[in-house]
Amino acid sequence: MLTLEQIATLVGGVIVGDPTTEITGVETIEGAREGDLTFAVNQKNTDKLSDSRAAAALVSQEITDCPIASVQCADVQKSFTQIAQHLRPTSPKTPVGISDKATISASATLGENVTIYPGAFIGDHCSIGDGTTIYPGVCVLENCQIGRDVSIYPNAVLYENTQVGDRSNIHANAVIGAHGFGYDSGKDGHKLSVQLGHVEIGNDADIGACTTIDRGTFGSTRIGNGSKLDNQVMVGHNCQIGEHNLLCSQVGIAGSCQTGNFVVMAGQVGIGDHLAIGDRAILGAKSGVMHNLAGDQTYVGAPAILARDRFQIFAAEAKLPEMRKQFKRLVRQVDRLEGRLSNNDSAEAA
Amino acid sequence: MLTLEQIATLVGGVIVGDPTTEITGVETIEGAREGDLTFAVNQKNTDKLSDSRAAAALVSQEITDCPIASVQCADVQKSFTQIAQHLRPTSPKTPVGISDKATISASATLGENVTIYPGAFIGDHCSIGDGTTIYPGVCVLENCQIGRDVSIYPNAVLYENTQVGDRSNIHANAVIGAHGFGYDSGKDGHKLSVQLGHVEIGNDADIGACTTIDRGTFGSTRIGNGSKLDNQVMVGHNCQIGEHNLLCSQVGIAGSCQTGNFVVMAGQVGIGDHLAIGDRAILGAKSGVMHNLAGDQTYVGAPAILARDRFQIFAAEAKLPEMRKQFKRLVRQVDRLEGRLSNNDSAEAA
Amino acid sequence: MLTLEQIATLVGGVIVGDPTTEITGVETIEGAREGDLTFAVNQKNTDKLSDSRAAAALVSQEITDCPIASVQCADVQKSFTQIAQHLRPTSPKTPVGISDKATISASATLGENVTIYPGAFIGDHCSIGDGTTIYPGVCVLENCQIGRDVSIYPNAVLYENTQVGDRSNIHANAVIGAHGFGYDSGKDGHKLSVQLGHVEIGNDADIGACTTIDRGTFGSTRIGNGSKLDNQVMVGHNCQIGEHNLLCSQVGIAGSCQTGNFVVMAGQVGIGDHLAIGDRAILGAKSGVMHNLAGDQTYVGAPAILARDRFQIFAAEAKLPEMRKQFKRLVRQVDRLEGRLSNNDSAEAA
Repeated sequence: MLTLEQIATLVGGVIVGDPTTEITGVETIEGAREGDLTFAVNQKNTDKLSDSRAAAALVSQEITDCPIASVQCADVQKSFTQIAQHLRPTSPKTPVGISDKATISASATLGENVTIYPGAFIGDHCSIGDGTTIYPGVCVLENCQIGRDVSIYPNAVLYENTQVGDRSNIHANAVIGAHGFGYDSGKDGHKLSVQLGHVEIGNDADIGACTTIDRGTFGSTRIGNGSKLDNQVMVGHNCQIGEHNLLCSQVGIAGSCQTGNFVVMAGQVGIGDHLAIGDRAILGAKSGVMHNLAGDQTYVGAPAILARDRFQIFAAEAKLPEMRKQFKRLVRQVDRLEGRLSNNDSAEAA
Repeated sequence: MLTLEQIATLVGGVIVGDPTTEITGVETIEGAREGDLTFAVNQKNTDKLSDSRAAAALVSQEITDCPIASVQCADVQKSFTQIAQHLRPTSPKTPVGISDKATISASATLGENVTIYPGAFIGDHCSIGDGTTIYPGVCVLENCQIGRDVSIYPNAVLYENTQVGDRSNIHANAVIGAHGFGYDSGKDGHKLSVQLGHVEIGNDADIGACTTIDRGTFGSTRIGNGSKLDNQVMVGHNCQIGEHNLLCSQVGIAGSCQTGNFVVMAGQVGIGDHLAIGDRAILGAKSGVMHNLAGDQTYVGAPAILARDRFQIFAAEAKLPEMRKQFKRLVRQVDRLEGRLSNNDSAEAA
Repeated sequence: MLTLEQIATLVGGVIVGDPTTEITGVETIEGAREGDLTFAVNQKNTDKLSDSRAAAALVSQEITDCPIASVQCADVQKSFTQIAQHLRPTSPKTPVGISDKATISASATLGENVTIYPGAFIGDHCSIGDGTTIYPGVCVLENCQIGRDVSIYPNAVLYENTQVGDRSNIHANAVIGAHGFGYDSGKDGHKLSVQLGHVEIGNDADIGACTTIDRGTFGSTRIGNGSKLDNQVMVGHNCQIGEHNLLCSQVGIAGSCQTGNFVVMAGQVGIGDHLAIGDRAILGAKSGVMHNLAGDQTYVGAPAILARDRFQIFAAEAKLPEMRKQFKRLVRQVDRLEGRLSNNDSAEAA
């Protein structure tokens, strides 16, 4: 608990309202409950505060009409983070080190300051870099190479030969390097292709919870440096994802695709196999990509086309039922005209 | 194994057919194999029985023309459940208690009659309510609070500070409280936002297998009392899901959305960020929501609009190729008319 | 490392280029880096080799103009696989057997040559066939029956009563047999239906990473022999999936559906509940199925209709904004015509 006065002191801000107001938590404007501190950096959000249950707000210095108790401060985001950390101090955790309840192959190599929780499995010939943390239940099969300061969260699975760069995070239950979905199909069924490839994840990459990245058939499936994959993303075998991509949740990319750098895909986008997406391309939610796409453009829809064209189609589509009625009227109107013209002609001929 | 006679006795029903028919399992009409008992409560399903491989059926008392051996009974559903339980008795399981193969922090608090299976991990300062069951491989990181009579199924993961209400179920490989997908993007790449929030799941909630619910940036992501999430659902950071929602499989909800009570979303629905969905709104499968939606209405399509409007568009769309042809014909017809009219005018002028 | 000369000897091929070229890895044309061997079987891919960083390529015997060093060979695919295996020999793994760090019920039955890794859990009354491998962290709840030569990859979960046929593979973090999403809904909330059924997976089936298959309400959810499910597929309760189906990633099938044999669904397809899909039907990516579909046809779109019809609609839709403009022009043209005709009539009448 902190009083508003203590908060103002901590962040070097100015109180407007009762300095004895007691704050027990931090929350967004919509989520706030009694005793919570929230924040607003513009007029729109300040206006929302009258409907919030928050006890007080951190606000920008120019906001003077805050409807609830407030502390004006220079850098709202930074100050709010500071109070959040103060109210929920990271409890000192029991040191873990290398748990003797983990299973670690004698042929694995561990760097300095590695943490391995109970129940983790590290296979033969793996190497794990300095400062890396392996959470409970993580399974790293043989011959994986994991860089420095990596976090692999609980129950994530790395199949054999996976490579992970420095400072990357792999979230819970993600699966890296499972078999690619490639079959030779005949009338008796489907025979799995060879699975001799692996997955390479670059530096500073984030891989979301329950995300799956399949190994290459031969060679690698690659996630470039700095690329961030949300939860439940699927990346097929032999894809080459560029640097600093943002792939939102439930995106699915079929096999052997390539993306440039700084590509953004919103939620539930699907990409067909063997396609290339250019640098800085942006794909709207639920887009379905069937052709290569040039960079520096925004695409929407299934099939995905330039956003401005798709939004014109959406607009026209919305008026389609009305247009059908108008069209039928027009057909009748033209038929009547033709009738009148023929009558005239007949009349003249007569 | 039960004879039809034994079944009739158990459920207090009337046999039509051979009482010595032997029943070894229960199944749906379509799935039934030799020796199975199935059921039908209306004429349509009764008719399907002639194509079923089932040996016999439980039927409603008014059904007298069942094409296979049957037992007429007062409450078919209840009687069928009774026979199903009889044929597959829950084997007495080895009592588990608190397994000494689980890893439980000394600072964790466990209620009465808690079950913790081998391989589970319970972090520092966690509390687990009376009667709760933690299955093998579940990982509960530090400072989580779990209510009474909760079941957390195998290999589910709760990140730190997660709260779970009473009588809720979290299915296998679900991930609660992973990092939200929020980044400050610049030309050098994407920097992860702070991750100071957590997830709160209410009472009587069900969370499906491989479903992921991200923590709030600050404050909470909340799932209201009685809400049921199917498998592979994604709920983004800071979402506030109301009470008694039904979110079907593969629904994806971006960050900071709010839903009312009794909202229903069919499979593969996607919701953009910062949107609000009103009480009792129903979203058809694959809907893509780009705007706030009022309650008490059904919406369909991407972009999601009122169902009746969308179905009119679907109907018009289906006729679009034909309409294009008709349109081209009409253009020619009008051109001809114009030609004739101009000829007439010229003729008159001449 | 192998020289090109050694490679030619190994595969019985003919070198074109420098025989001392050193090869350290195998890769696709696009993914290749310095020192990699790649391959090309047609002219199109041969042409791409000028832009590849590969050091050399295996090529078909008829290809004589390869822009980089090459080895011509009779069966490129087979030879390439051979070199891939040579360059990445499967390291001899520490023998595992039945790990004493696994938890195996005393009432479980294990066949010959079963491998069970540390951290796996095998419940009461389970049976596991000869030659089957259970990876780390796998959880098999009570009364499951698993065939011969099955692989269950790390952290996959089988709920109670699951049956798995011979030679099937279940990939990491897949969940088989969680509760079906069936509720009796009332004004006080939703009550879970009975969950007395189970899942049956046939022989030679592959189940992808993070794929979920729910148990039947009564009776079974079935996956037929030889059917292959990619990652993140969802199969609802009581579905009966036929033989040799290919279900690509992120496909979602609602409850009680039936599919024939050799059905193919591309990525992100959704199928409504209680629907039937005929033998050899093919569903394009992102299709949304709302009605039964006959076999031996290809369907596309949401709602899914015959591909040729859907592609006509796509084409017409793309021209819809232009057609709207043309339509407005036509309306004006017809109005003008009508005006002229009326003027003429008036003039004549005058």
